[in-house]
Amino acid sequence: MGSSSLTTNTKTAAYHSGTSLGEMADIYRRELLESILPFWLKYSKDEKNGGYFTCLERNGEVFDTDKFMWLQGRNVWCFSFMYKEITENPEWLKMALHGADFMEKFGRDAEGNWYFSLTADGRPLVQPYNIFSDCFACMAFAALDKVQPSDRYKKNALDTFENIIRRRHNTKGLYTKSFPGTRNLKNFSLPMILCNLSLELEHIIGTERVNSFIPEVVHEVMDVFYQPELGLILENVQEDGSFSDSFEGRLLNPGHAIEAMWFVMDLGKRMNDHALISKACNIMLNTLEKGWDKEYGGIFYFLDVHGHPPQQLEWDQKLWWVHVEALVALAKGYAATGDERCEKWFRIVHDYTWKHFRDPEFGEWFGYLNRRGEVLLTLKGGKWKGCFHIPRALFQVWKTLEKI
Amino acid sequence: MGSSSLTTNTKTAAYHSGTSLGEMADIYRRELLESILPFWLKYSKDEKNGGYFTCLERNGEVFDTDKFMWLQGRNVWCFSFMYKEITENPEWLKMALHGADFMEKFGRDAEGNWYFSLTADGRPLVQPYNIFSDCFACMAFAALDKVQPSDRYKKNALDTFENIIRRRHNTKGLYTKSFPGTRNLKNFSLPMILCNLSLELEHIIGTERVNSFIPEVVHEVMDVFYQPELGLILENVQEDGSFSDSFEGRLLNPGHAIEAMWFVMDLGKRMNDHALISKACNIMLNTLEKGWDKEYGGIFYFLDVHGHPPQQLEWDQKLWWVHVEALVALAKGYAATGDERCEKWFRIVHDYTWKHFRDPEFGEWFGYLNRRGEVLLTLKGGKWKGCFHIPRALFQVWKTLEKI
Repeated sequence: MGSSSLTTNTKTAAYHSGTSLGEMADIYRRELLESILPFWLKYSKDEKNGGYFTCLERNGEVFDTDKFMWLQGRNVWCFSFMYKEITENPEWLKMALHGADFMEKFGRDAEGNWYFSLTADGRPLVQPYNIFSDCFACMAFAALDKVQPSDRYKKNALDTFENIIRRRHNTKGLYTKSFPGTRNLKNFSLPMILCNLSLELEHIIGTERVNSFIPEVVHEVMDVFYQPELGLILENVQEDGSFSDSFEGRLLNPGHAIEAMWFVMDLGKRMNDHALISKACNIMLNTLEKGWDKEYGGIFYFLDVHGHPPQQLEWDQKLWWVHVEALVALAKGYAATGDERCEKWFRIVHDYTWKHFRDPEFGEWFGYLNRRGEVLLTLKGGKWKGCFHIPRALFQVWKTLEKI
Repeated sequence: MGSSSLTTNTKTAAYHSGTSLGEMADIYRRELLESILPFWLKYSKDEKNGGYFTCLERNGEVFDTDKFMWLQGRNVWCFSFMYKEITENPEWLKMALHGADFMEKFGRDAEGNWYFSLTADGRPLVQPYNIFSDCFACMAFAALDKVQPSDRYKKNALDTFENIIRRRHNTKGLYTKSFPGTRNLKNFSLPMILCNLSLELEHIIGTERVNSFIPEVVHEVMDVFYQPELGLILENVQEDGSFSDSFEGRLLNPGHAIEAMWFVMDLGKRMNDHALISKACNIMLNTLEKGWDKEYGGIFYFLDVHGHPPQQLEWDQKLWWVHVEALVALAKGYAATGDERCEKWFRIVHDYTWKHFRDPEFGEWFGYLNRRGEVLLTLKGGKWKGCFHIPRALFQVWKTLEKI
């Protein structure tokens, strides 16, 4: 597991300027195993009611007890995944089961849709208006089923998957605010979700069904949402694929596009399609060039493709998930193509990310920085930040760099 | 109209340190008449389709053509109000009628609810999920009816008012995401709206009906939402008035509370209730002390009453409406009570606001600054900023200071 000769300084995550990318694998492994997973194990379990607290202050203190379904599901997924991929640590399995039990007991409405949030003791707070709750619940039970096979877990995952497929063209259902027919936009998350989910469920739904999703997602993302004249991916386009000159249509979400590109690189690897890998790597690098803040460093959260003011007031903030997903994409891009721009950018994003997001004092990482890279919110977890992007990214970078 | 002997510098809005508050009235008057109203007259009219563009870049250039009903209504209200209160400028009346025609033609669904937004040519984009669209439409037609009386305008205003009253306990209707019964919170906007609206409609619904709303709003705001042990107003409380230890329950919105306090001071004046005025003035000052950023100046957008991280990523930003509403509240507080803290704070907030928000180069004011007071978005108008808070506040401060 990584080079033991590497001199790392866990306090500052410093590495010698001559350190190769391959030698850096170890600091990712150690951060995952020594800081991130222990933090969540220690602070997020609700021993009284089951499930997880995710609103954790800098030092792990619980500051809000609501249970957000995205993060319940992601926590279950994470500990199941690490148990399967790293080592069969019984504490990790116990942690995953702890959340899964709570989700099974309280998480769904009568139609099997997953609520958006619950009280600490499991009473529904916010209706299932958000299909990502279902996506992460589905991922959770599929991953748990891999390490502790159970017909019930399979059924939870499969029922939820079919429900998502049924809702895919009208994800918000009753809660849709847009007037039908005037400006029908499609968002590029949807094909990504289905592909992502189907891969997670491959042991349940079979390789054939998984493979049936891939051409559609590759086409949608790489031909429809990707704009060759810009070299960039738009977050929303008209249903016919054309540009919409509106706040939504002009929106760039660099982190989302970059995350999608490592996903497409993985699909390219699965299909042995080098041209696809190379195209995804180039789009990822274009997005990074466009999204990088030349003045203060870090990747912007949102931009308007025409340079107009975005409607998101948080547009210039630097978010944890954007930066760690970029590290995964750069590591994978470098491993797959050897493109030196990936190495150059990996070092730049690594330095920025470890310096600004990591909290050497209390463990885990900050989630929200202002444009200057100063901590905007002291939380380690909240309504949207849980145990997911950082551990998944540390794992992916570790495993990718290790093989270089 | 203000003292002609006052030496002002419109480029920097400087005033002699010895300038009395009364003498400052004139710079508010001039900014309103020479910068703000001309900017909207010049840039926001859609001559082709009717209605107003509100997404205006720093120099007035239209960067998005969607029509947001809040801002259509507010623009109509503003030009009607100024026509009535300042001078019968025919251009102002024409401007108000220009938007009112568009609203009448395209603004409502079959049940008379006002859409949230329309395309430039009036096709519905976003459903009437937001009762404030109705509130501002109601205000618009009531104000227009005062300067150009019409049975149709009266009916538009009255029908909308009754519709709001009918929807008041379930404002989001079908679009409500919170699960019924688990955590029923009430927001303090609602009683304020009704009271505000009823005053705007006094010439239509009569003084008796207006007076029937006032005790309820005063009780709700000053007894239920106001927390004597904190000296502050909470944005949301449980239906029984108790504290909810949740993101919503812990939320402080200083600008909203401060705006409400000048409104209550006006009610106190109407009822000749000096104790109420004094209480409102004290709450306003407490809120300002609590909400003021001791490090960089300016008033925070959101705070958590327990000091936890708020869920709003924009919590530390400085917004135009918060600061101009504070100027109104301080001017009115000073005029009504003579409290020296009002004068001290008026000068502090005046200096911050004129220095950071005002754009001496292109006219009008910026809307969104980061914590340090630097421009975050260059826009002069957008999805939420239109021709409303600044002109209304400049007018209110001008008229209040003029009488000191």
